Amino acid sequence: MIRATAGVDIGGTSAKLGALAADGRVLDRASVPTGKSIGASDFVSAVARAVEALAERTGADIAAVGVGSAGLVDTASGVVRRSPNLPEWRDVPLRRLLSDALGRPVRLLNDADAFALGEYGQGAGRGTRTGVYLTLGTGVGGAIVLDGVLFRGAFGMAGEAGHMTVDVNGARCPCGGRGCLELTVGSAHIVEAATALVRSGADGRGLREAAGDGDLSPQTIALAATRGDVTATRVFDRVGEVLGLFVVGLTNLLSPDVVVIGGGVAGAGPPLWRPLESAVSRYSLSPVECRPALEPAALGTDAGWLGAATLARDASGG
Amino acid sequence: MIRATAGVDIGGTSAKLGALAADGRVLDRASVPTGKSIGASDFVSAVARAVEALAERTGADIAAVGVGSAGLVDTASGVVRRSPNLPEWRDVPLRRLLSDALGRPVRLLNDADAFALGEYGQGAGRGTRTGVYLTLGTGVGGAIVLDGVLFRGAFGMAGEAGHMTVDVNGARCPCGGRGCLELTVGSAHIVEAATALVRSGADGRGLREAAGDGDLSPQTIALAATRGDVTATRVFDRVGEVLGLFVVGLTNLLSPDVVVIGGGVAGAGPPLWRPLESAVSRYSLSPVECRPALEPAALGTDAGWLGAATLARDASGG
Repeated sequence: MIRATAGVDIGGTSAKLGALAADGRVLDRASVPTGKSIGASDFVSAVARAVEALAERTGADIAAVGVGSAGLVDTASGVVRRSPNLPEWRDVPLRRLLSDALGRPVRLLNDADAFALGEYGQGAGRGTRTGVYLTLGTGVGGAIVLDGVLFRGAFGMAGEAGHMTVDVNGARCPCGGRGCLELTVGSAHIVEAATALVRSGADGRGLREAAGDGDLSPQTIALAATRGDVTATRVFDRVGEVLGLFVVGLTNLLSPDVVVIGGGVAGAGPPLWRPLESAVSRYSLSPVECRPALEPAALGTDAGWLGAATLARDASGG
Repeated sequence: MIRATAGVDIGGTSAKLGALAADGRVLDRASVPTGKSIGASDFVSAVARAVEALAERTGADIAAVGVGSAGLVDTASGVVRRSPNLPEWRDVPLRRLLSDALGRPVRLLNDADAFALGEYGQGAGRGTRTGVYLTLGTGVGGAIVLDGVLFRGAFGMAGEAGHMTVDVNGARCPCGGRGCLELTVGSAHIVEAATALVRSGADGRGLREAAGDGDLSPQTIALAATRGDVTATRVFDRVGEVLGLFVVGLTNLLSPDVVVIGGGVAGAGPPLWRPLESAVSRYSLSPVECRPALEPAALGTDAGWLGAATLARDASGG
């Protein structure tokens, strides 16, 4: 019987699952519709059924299950304190509930850590030793993977790269800090920057065209920039510059061999990556041969469940 | 015979040495006058004589020697590329020269790393797991010590905390970056900030009194602040605020259990530490019980040679 673990990635409207063989092969995937208002016990039943179905379809012996969740996750106690994807959940002891339903050990981790382990094991970070993984979305998440192991620090809270100060004169952040990275490169702030430029007189036609009937988003702004729109290009030039300065600082502190960047904003393509790479080469202290590879995430929506399954495998000695 | 290693800290006008027993006891110290213009071979002879004298006085078997140097140090090849303390040195293969003269293995490291290992082993970082060590002087150095081992990253260049961007709108830094930490909290910039305040109309009498016949320095500005001078207090309030934001960001990224701060500027006392601690409590994301201890360096000028001796001991399996 093939030895495997399963991974679950809790999203906003569905949970993605998959089975990962001990030797690293992806055996199968599944998706469970949830919806934002699902209760914890319905969620647990649905996920447990999906894991059993995966086990049956693949014929694998699923020894353990990893679950990645956005929001505030207490990995030590296995409790989801709050999740933006499931706003009605409060202090849900997900590890115990799932473990009881499945009769298998369950590991809980936050989504940025799951993303990092997934990309390390199967994606853009493969074969690296000192990796920094950033997810650019509504929030800016981060994780550090050293020789395949998540670096958690003394209190288990390492990785909050989005809440390092990049502008000591900047605005207060909801996290309590000031001038955090997230305040420049998070989705909401990219949209705000575009809106502010238009309000102060910049040409907004390209932005409106790209958005069509919908709202402005990092994706529509990126689309406008790709079409050559000057205002949209200015927005991403600034995001790329700030992110580049941040990556240079991380490099000076940690000397990583890879910085993997994922999440919705990272999908903006050349409008983001061109100014980012240009800032890194303009501002670097390290000689070229000692700089990290700058890599877009490679696994798309598979990273989360794969990382969770990887943690479950490593934790269960598989 | 007591098993020991020796450490050497190359300073501007003297080298400090000491012998460290394998069990952690300090056996003896010495100091060798050098002067800034000493040639490499005279330096090597003087240090070799001092190490032999230490061995004789202590009766210890000195198995290996560690040497900490400021400046650009290539630890892999054992070469001091440039040192502010010995400005005439260029690409001096110090490890080989000293090892030939002493007939003992020699390890070379930079001064911030030596400081960190010293404070970890014998000083303010004792018993911690994830420590960040900052030296605030002309330059701002840094090192990360994980479970007693220097964290060097994939290219061996980790620790340059002074060259992380804290102000994306700030000035270019000689390192190539922009708005680096060093540009606010390094000695020269503290003096510049005081001078600029006075030039723009702030009361400069307290600063002049504290400086006496000498030039302004972080020490004289701190003295003025201690005496209640408003201008000097403003200068350190800003340094403490920026350093506090930086420490909070480091905490969010690395979740350390200690941040040790040494170097001349750290000796400013309450004028620096009061606003620093206040900024950390104002801006922290981590709950109080998950914040690092903020510790002034405990070993003074012993940290460098002790750290170098510690590295030599750990490297020689002692």
